[in-house]
Amino acid sequence: MSYMHGLDKIMRPRSIAVIGASTKEHTIGSDIMKRLLEYGYTGNIYPINPKDSEIHGLKAYPSVLDVADDIDMALIVINAKYVLSVIDQCHRKGIKGVVVISAGFKETGSAGAELEKQLAAKIHEYGMTLVGPNCLGVVNTDPAVRLDACFAESLPVRGDIGFVSQSGALGGGILNILKDLNLGFAQFISIGNQADVNADSAIEYWENVDDVRQILLYMESIADPKKFRKLATSTTKKKTILALKAGRSAAGASAASSHTGSLAGADKAADALLKQSGVIREFTLQNLFNTAKVFSHCPIPKGDRVAIVTNSGGPGIMATDTVVECGMQMAELSEATKEKLRSFLPAAASVKNPVDMIASAPLDHYQQTLETVLSDDGVDMVIVIYLPFLGLKDIDVAKAVMDIKAQHPNKPIVGVFMTKNEFFAKLSDMEVNVPFFMFAEEAVMGLNRLNQQRKWIERPITSPMRFDVDAEKAAKIFSNAAAENREQLTTGESLQVLSAYGIRVCKDGEAKNADEAVALAEEIGYPVVMKLNSKKISHKTDVGGVRVGIKDAEQLRAEYADLVAKLEAKGLMEGFEGVIVQEMVKSDREMVCGCAKDPQYGPMMMFGLGGVFVEVMKDVTFRLAPLTPEDANDMITSVKAYKLLQGARGAIPAQIDKVEETLMRLSQLVEDYPSIEELDINPLMISDKNGEPIAVDGRIKVSLT
Amino acid sequence: MSYMHGLDKIMRPRSIAVIGASTKEHTIGSDIMKRLLEYGYTGNIYPINPKDSEIHGLKAYPSVLDVADDIDMALIVINAKYVLSVIDQCHRKGIKGVVVISAGFKETGSAGAELEKQLAAKIHEYGMTLVGPNCLGVVNTDPAVRLDACFAESLPVRGDIGFVSQSGALGGGILNILKDLNLGFAQFISIGNQADVNADSAIEYWENVDDVRQILLYMESIADPKKFRKLATSTTKKKTILALKAGRSAAGASAASSHTGSLAGADKAADALLKQSGVIREFTLQNLFNTAKVFSHCPIPKGDRVAIVTNSGGPGIMATDTVVECGMQMAELSEATKEKLRSFLPAAASVKNPVDMIASAPLDHYQQTLETVLSDDGVDMVIVIYLPFLGLKDIDVAKAVMDIKAQHPNKPIVGVFMTKNEFFAKLSDMEVNVPFFMFAEEAVMGLNRLNQQRKWIERPITSPMRFDVDAEKAAKIFSNAAAENREQLTTGESLQVLSAYGIRVCKDGEAKNADEAVALAEEIGYPVVMKLNSKKISHKTDVGGVRVGIKDAEQLRAEYADLVAKLEAKGLMEGFEGVIVQEMVKSDREMVCGCAKDPQYGPMMMFGLGGVFVEVMKDVTFRLAPLTPEDANDMITSVKAYKLLQGARGAIPAQIDKVEETLMRLSQLVEDYPSIEELDINPLMISDKNGEPIAVDGRIKVSLT
Repeated sequence: MSYMHGLDKIMRPRSIAVIGASTKEHTIGSDIMKRLLEYGYTGNIYPINPKDSEIHGLKAYPSVLDVADDIDMALIVINAKYVLSVIDQCHRKGIKGVVVISAGFKETGSAGAELEKQLAAKIHEYGMTLVGPNCLGVVNTDPAVRLDACFAESLPVRGDIGFVSQSGALGGGILNILKDLNLGFAQFISIGNQADVNADSAIEYWENVDDVRQILLYMESIADPKKFRKLATSTTKKKTILALKAGRSAAGASAASSHTGSLAGADKAADALLKQSGVIREFTLQNLFNTAKVFSHCPIPKGDRVAIVTNSGGPGIMATDTVVECGMQMAELSEATKEKLRSFLPAAASVKNPVDMIASAPLDHYQQTLETVLSDDGVDMVIVIYLPFLGLKDIDVAKAVMDIKAQHPNKPIVGVFMTKNEFFAKLSDMEVNVPFFMFAEEAVMGLNRLNQQRKWIERPITSPMRFDVDAEKAAKIFSNAAAENREQLTTGESLQVLSAYGIRVCKDGEAKNADEAVALAEEIGYPVVMKLNSKKISHKTDVGGVRVGIKDAEQLRAEYADLVAKLEAKGLMEGFEGVIVQEMVKSDREMVCGCAKDPQYGPMMMFGLGGVFVEVMKDVTFRLAPLTPEDANDMITSVKAYKLLQGARGAIPAQIDKVEETLMRLSQLVEDYPSIEELDINPLMISDKNGEPIAVDGRIKVSLT
Repeated sequence: MSYMHGLDKIMRPRSIAVIGASTKEHTIGSDIMKRLLEYGYTGNIYPINPKDSEIHGLKAYPSVLDVADDIDMALIVINAKYVLSVIDQCHRKGIKGVVVISAGFKETGSAGAELEKQLAAKIHEYGMTLVGPNCLGVVNTDPAVRLDACFAESLPVRGDIGFVSQSGALGGGILNILKDLNLGFAQFISIGNQADVNADSAIEYWENVDDVRQILLYMESIADPKKFRKLATSTTKKKTILALKAGRSAAGASAASSHTGSLAGADKAADALLKQSGVIREFTLQNLFNTAKVFSHCPIPKGDRVAIVTNSGGPGIMATDTVVECGMQMAELSEATKEKLRSFLPAAASVKNPVDMIASAPLDHYQQTLETVLSDDGVDMVIVIYLPFLGLKDIDVAKAVMDIKAQHPNKPIVGVFMTKNEFFAKLSDMEVNVPFFMFAEEAVMGLNRLNQQRKWIERPITSPMRFDVDAEKAAKIFSNAAAENREQLTTGESLQVLSAYGIRVCKDGEAKNADEAVALAEEIGYPVVMKLNSKKISHKTDVGGVRVGIKDAEQLRAEYADLVAKLEAKGLMEGFEGVIVQEMVKSDREMVCGCAKDPQYGPMMMFGLGGVFVEVMKDVTFRLAPLTPEDANDMITSVKAYKLLQGARGAIPAQIDKVEETLMRLSQLVEDYPSIEELDINPLMISDKNGEPIAVDGRIKVSLT
């Protein structure tokens, strides 16, 4: 690593000062000293405490300034009120890395928040890097470092995970059970109140730390969505990021904000952000760990074709169901593969996928079958299922599977061993190269995540496009509205802004007489709608003022004459200003698109099925602006109504590229005008004639402050 | 139990003959003898084997006929080809219960299927009850019986579950891990090829067996859907039935049928059946076991309001998210409760739900908080979350929770203990009265199942209604079509059949002149549509033959005159027979309903959002005919489009009772005419005027064979 990240001083310090180290039993100052020593930290430890000269066998110092050698990192566990002055001392000593475990900051109210603000200012001023305050500490299991500066119950287990937890207690709880889950980690950072270091910093740092091969995040909020998106989008192409973001529901978000003092962001926006950044979002801790286990031991597959090898039908069927429900393929085994399988499996076995070797399958059937299936080019991933059967031991089968895995490192293999906990306990003391689960669905869902990551890696990275637009025209409309102190643009203004940004809007114009109406209609193209334009009459339909489906000039002239005649007959010609001639869009497919500004995440784009179904069907999807071409395409293809766009039931397919462009132009508009609070095109009609998307109605609201 | 069920001789036998008992190591005949003895079967065992005089210390007999005493049950493990003759001997001996473990029947092909047919015929003829063939055996853990006639790896663990497995190997696998899952069972039946006893028989038997307090089913097919529905519907009101039905996907169903020889039914129909029967369907084994654990230790709650007590924010938030996503309520704690909590919890704690006692919470805070929350009348269920914290041991907290549970047996309490496997291992050796899980979501999903069961119990049981219909008219239409050898009824015939069954169809009639047209229109009610009725002209619209939105008699006469004038002018009066006058249904809400016959499950009713959205949105639901009023109501309320029916966006609410009646009348129709293969009303329009459902188009197809 050429570039030295600020976190390096904290995660790989050559020396640590423990400020608040103590000899007093059951204090954090004592426990953390014991833990540092017990785990065998490879650098120097300087206990700092003015009252003791020796702490846990090490010489203690009144302050960091009394230590002669250089100190990389200060681990602070003293009362919050002394923290600021200690930071000053650290600065004088030249310490660049600080971990403040002490609580008593933002989480306690406004006085604490003020203290935290001062702490952050000092850290910034001194060019330090800070983890915390109000956190559980940090861990690095690298044998060259062996840093356990954390007070979880258990000693760390070595593995490939970089783990960030926004909740200290939960992070500790997780460290405590990792071994039971057959997982280990490389580094752990409890970010606490994240006054400086947050998930972003960890991602940035770990992108270039080789022994962190996957990143796990427990988050209750995302501090800086823009930065997170930028960092995560590039990191996820190299290493998997798995995230559990809690506070999805309003009730959950409210619970989250009461306990961490952070503003819980709208979950829709967070979800969009994670999707766009290639972060795999899990919704339960169990799934988070299961997925991590799969990524620890499996390469990214070449495709999505899954083969299942089993000694029992039931779990094979359950695995098959889940493969199909996840949208993966059941591999078609080649004739050669089936023939080979038939050559050694009993007649009662099934040689098509799932391959059921039947209950009596001995170890060598497992070996031969797995080898045979792995060699089939039509197989991308394999699930091996074992149920205990007379004489065949789970651990022997597992070892055989692991041996074969060692020879076939390029295809993911996952084990489903429906056997006792003892088996999994044994595994946690072994070097394993295959993830083992008790239940079939866990294995399949893990493979599905590998497949998701494969697709993400294959997805191109592009930047948002910039389109030529009539910026002047749009600016004028916005400034006019601002001059009139209007937050809400009129429909006409809204459509004009959209049109200025190159979005195809329903064409219309005003005509003062029949000749002008015909000229306009020729320009727009028939059929057209003709609407009365009168300053006096607001309910046009009541006086027959709306004429639809006008097919040609002849009919238009006739309708115009008829309209004038009727108005004259009824004495309603006062205020008559002619007509509005409008393009008549015929469409059975009404979509909706738009943008709403999230106070924390910024402009969030929306696309989906429009009309009366928006609220009922909720077939809409969200992404944060700015949209890349891939984002726009993802939005369109991820709603159910995509089938309608493709041309279900004989309809002309929509011009998908034009729909994408519409979304991207909207994205450019809301990026150019951060004052836009809300923007809707509803409906965005898909023309029956040529599949073109046309904005028929639009609405823009800006903030004037 | 007054009525003696056939299974009683098998599950509670006073004596067993083991036919094929053996002294030879690693044979089923030896293993099963050892297992019967090891588990301490309380009745007499008679080993049957012509070659040995003593087997495993017991006197052996050449045949059952050589045993002097009565024998209740024969456990048969001999080669399939000898089974039939042994059954004859059993009959002569007066044995009524038979378990055939031996394989070599239907699962091996047509010869085996023939043998199985003969076996079933004998069983029927002799009035015996048979479990198997090709099964793993049966278990009863009742201390008065202690029957382990099964060759799973582990000895059974006592509990309250009656468990039926269609897969022998999977059943054995499950028995093997139950202890690790903190579960026990009362009885187990491996039904194998279910030549006689199937899931239905077990449900029927267990409904009246007191120590079976919940029933778990692993199924790959449902042998007799009608019988299953009848039995399950009544049993589920008394004890929970949890089912995992595998073979949901086509690929999974195909795997299922290759290995069990059973026809995999359409999963939609199976799903409908389980819903209508009050069976709780789980989709993974893990969820099945988690739910069973909750039902083992929790009463049915009075409502759906959940309170959460935790010492860590994170899992509290995750639990809250899941409560909301499951559609349950977060309990609102009363002011009195909050005040009480404030009196002993530290200031940093949160006394609103979720109650966060913070990490330092000692044991007595757990006790007091739990007691306080349980006493709040606004709380129906409680989740207690524990994360390890310095000094406070998981098992001590668990014991305290269990003590409190013993004093408050009427509210469900579930523990989330994010701690090591050791804890759960300890629990499996203890008497527990609270289900404990490692993850918050498992606990919440368990409570959600309790809530589902509560709602099912509260749901009335009613029978399908019979409506007065014009049976004669319908019969005539069907017989006419049959006489013409037509499978497909015309639209007119279809609508007439629907009308004869009292379904409101779009009104229309023929008129030969303007007077008749007006009379008809008065009867139908304006507005109407007028359509040319001509034997010569098929494209009515081309000649202006369709006039919509006719508002009154005056307009109707004018349109009629205009039509005739136009036809005369164009010389098209030949074949003119007047007009069809049709009700004009104005509706923005198009639903669809209908019925399709599943080859195994019979007529399956469908209801949902119609129009172009049927295929794209798939917002439809299914239930098997006949429909009870509750079934019909469930169908309507379970689709998303229900919001449209309720009157979203200011529309007039649909007449829901009329929609229900439409579904029930359809159900009566397809029950009365089993020859109906397919039936659709698409669209069933909801009138904008009064919310009435009107069948605008209909299609009926029958089978003529």
